[in-house]
Amino acid sequence: MTDTPLVPLVEYAQAGPQVRAVYDDIMRTRGTDWINNFWKVLAHDPALLERTWQSVRAVMAPGALDPLVKEMIYVAVSATNGCAYCTYSHTAAARAKGMTDAQLMELMAVVGMANETNRLANGLRPPVDAAFVPEG
Amino acid sequence: MTDTPLVPLVEYAQAGPQVRAVYDDIMRTRGTDWINNFWKVLAHDPALLERTWQSVRAVMAPGALDPLVKEMIYVAVSATNGCAYCTYSHTAAARAKGMTDAQLMELMAVVGMANETNRLANGLRPPVDAAFVPEG
Amino acid sequence: MTDTPLVPLVEYAQAGPQVRAVYDDIMRTRGTDWINNFWKVLAHDPALLERTWQSVRAVMAPGALDPLVKEMIYVAVSATNGCAYCTYSHTAAARAKGMTDAQLMELMAVVGMANETNRLANGLRPPVDAAFVPEG
Amino acid sequence: MTDTPLVPLVEYAQAGPQVRAVYDDIMRTRGTDWINNFWKVLAHDPALLERTWQSVRAVMAPGALDPLVKEMIYVAVSATNGCAYCTYSHTAAARAKGMTDAQLMELMAVVGMANETNRLANGLRPPVDAAFVPEG
Amino acid sequence: MTDTPLVPLVEYAQAGPQVRAVYDDIMRTRGTDWINNFWKVLAHDPALLERTWQSVRAVMAPGALDPLVKEMIYVAVSATNGCAYCTYSHTAAARAKGMTDAQLMELMAVVGMANETNRLANGLRPPVDAAFVPEG
Amino acid sequence: MTDTPLVPLVEYAQAGPQVRAVYDDIMRTRGTDWINNFWKVLAHDPALLERTWQSVRAVMAPGALDPLVKEMIYVAVSATNGCAYCTYSHTAAARAKGMTDAQLMELMAVVGMANETNRLANGLRPPVDAAFVPEG
Repeated sequence: MTDTPLVPLVEYAQAGPQVRAVYDDIMRTRGTDWINNFWKVLAHDPALLERTWQSVRAVMAPGALDPLVKEMIYVAVSATNGCAYCTYSHTAAARAKGMTDAQLMELMAVVGMANETNRLANGLRPPVDAAFVPEG
Repeated sequence: MTDTPLVPLVEYAQAGPQVRAVYDDIMRTRGTDWINNFWKVLAHDPALLERTWQSVRAVMAPGALDPLVKEMIYVAVSATNGCAYCTYSHTAAARAKGMTDAQLMELMAVVGMANETNRLANGLRPPVDAAFVPEG
Repeated sequence: MTDTPLVPLVEYAQAGPQVRAVYDDIMRTRGTDWINNFWKVLAHDPALLERTWQSVRAVMAPGALDPLVKEMIYVAVSATNGCAYCTYSHTAAARAKGMTDAQLMELMAVVGMANETNRLANGLRPPVDAAFVPEG
Repeated sequence: MTDTPLVPLVEYAQAGPQVRAVYDDIMRTRGTDWINNFWKVLAHDPALLERTWQSVRAVMAPGALDPLVKEMIYVAVSATNGCAYCTYSHTAAARAKGMTDAQLMELMAVVGMANETNRLANGLRPPVDAAFVPEG
Repeated sequence: MTDTPLVPLVEYAQAGPQVRAVYDDIMRTRGTDWINNFWKVLAHDPALLERTWQSVRAVMAPGALDPLVKEMIYVAVSATNGCAYCTYSHTAAARAKGMTDAQLMELMAVVGMANETNRLANGLRPPVDAAFVPEG
Repeated sequence: MTDTPLVPLVEYAQAGPQVRAVYDDIMRTRGTDWINNFWKVLAHDPALLERTWQSVRAVMAPGALDPLVKEMIYVAVSATNGCAYCTYSHTAAARAKGMTDAQLMELMAVVGMANETNRLANGLRPPVDAAFVPEG
């Protein structure tokens, strides 16, 4: 199940100050003492690492949507795209935020159904009903 | 923006009893007096129409997840897959269930971010961290 | 529903000899007297046009699979990918080869179901059963 | 190649009566004495398991299309979506229904070609020819 | 070909100071005097607008890769995903940066071929050759 | 990380003359003395092998675009589609043609951003600006 990464993992001990600052902020924000491998591959481009982390932190913070809802949306997209790494990591994150097994199964049921009806619509191409289109 | 459907729309007046029974149940369940075009193309195969509707009704009913959360997950998948019909119809459904503009924009921000990091992971292929894998 | 193409359509009257030779072969092979727009955009790169047409002709010819089955597989992929042009053109081609409405609806039912269970598997990640793996 | 599932596999011995009834029907319908892992992860939500199995059984039954053709369409969608589990399981199912190596290779040739031309059309955006659009 | 947006377009005249500041920076950076519709829908969430623009500006700036190469990569992804808006907008951007018709056609040829062979690999699942895997 | 292929690998020693001729041409063109597994699964259908190789050789040859640019476009598509085999093989090919780590990271940044904004556009559906549409 494990891949060999296409660039080496940048561990904290080897990292320069810009990468360490991001790693520190990830651990502080999440209340953890380790960094997962996704960030360790991005760290080859410190600007990409920093920009991606700041976007993730901003997008996933509490706002108009609940953080658990956001994690489940993340899982829904990851399963739709078939990203194994993201499916494992965001399912774990959703569980850490309280997702139950019943919620996971119901999430998957919606994801499956949406993927099915997306293709029924794309294959048969019904016109969009006027009632669904916002007034211009 | 409107497509011509690949099979004619089956209107209520032309429909046989099996299709009418489904149309009636859709309108009763949703508290509406019309049927959207998605169901009218499926109606060419009454068994497919009935099975799809019964699955959608069961999956989207209140359960471990809130119906609005389910609609937003549906929108997330539809935007990821690029299904125009489904994006218009489920965004309208989510709004009818109370989704605000702020929630829609935040939903899109999560969908965008997930699609981005899915590809960073699929392109650089970090190994899945042991902490994310459930114990066997 | 109609797009404006990103490169002009190359009509027969304007085409050079390499493009005309391909157009002639398309019409001869299909028994038609017109060229659809897909080939007219490819014609901006005569080598791409020729290579693509020769591959399509070879792949879609009768072989171990029936030509109608091949057209339906083409429709299945096109609906899965959400390619509107390809869905219209290959559904028309399948109908020209005898696909009935009942077959189209059943094809869509399989496509929808496969897209659903693909995501249930990608989201829950069951291990591949040993019985499904060919012996090495 | 094997994943660790995100929910434990529900084995027959541990399963409750609703799950066992589905497992029994799967084995009876397929003439086998074992259950593959896909169903064992779905079994965490017995209603989802039952609904999905009943849909699969109905969709994949003989009808306007031959069961082998349906399995090959399932493989085409699974390869297009990159679902490893589904590609292994439905290729095995298609072989069990008589698919030859020559048919598998020809199926893949069509799938590859369709994925190629889908993107040529989506990238160059030729207008849909009027001849491909059903009369309204 | 034109969609109705799911949220109203935020025009400069109606925009608040945070949105205007982003619009001004877009026009200054690009040397234009207008804002395209993508940013006008994002402007409903000024933080999302600002974050997305700053990321795009940083990512698309000259660096290890040439700006035209970056635009062509953007087109390749957009055509693969079937995003019509993005295909039109980034093809126009690539042309503004000097992309010729011959380069566009060659780009499409690579995109088509990659989509084809991606599915041949996902469908037949050859093991990754050891020579392709970086040393750990 | 390694898959078991769905058809056996055809090694040079076992191959018939048509397959050997293609293998020889692959090695000659690439200046290598081995064949990667992708071709060894295609070799079950010598016509598919030959056609695919000839297309790849023609498409990836120097032309209006630089061969390294073409390899990076191939990687962009492969990461977007989540094809592991293709991501490993074409990243290796791009490195063999001189791609630096900085270029790989920048490529991934563009791929990630394009996948993000593709979904923001597909979810909010801004109308295509007239300025982006070629004159008919």
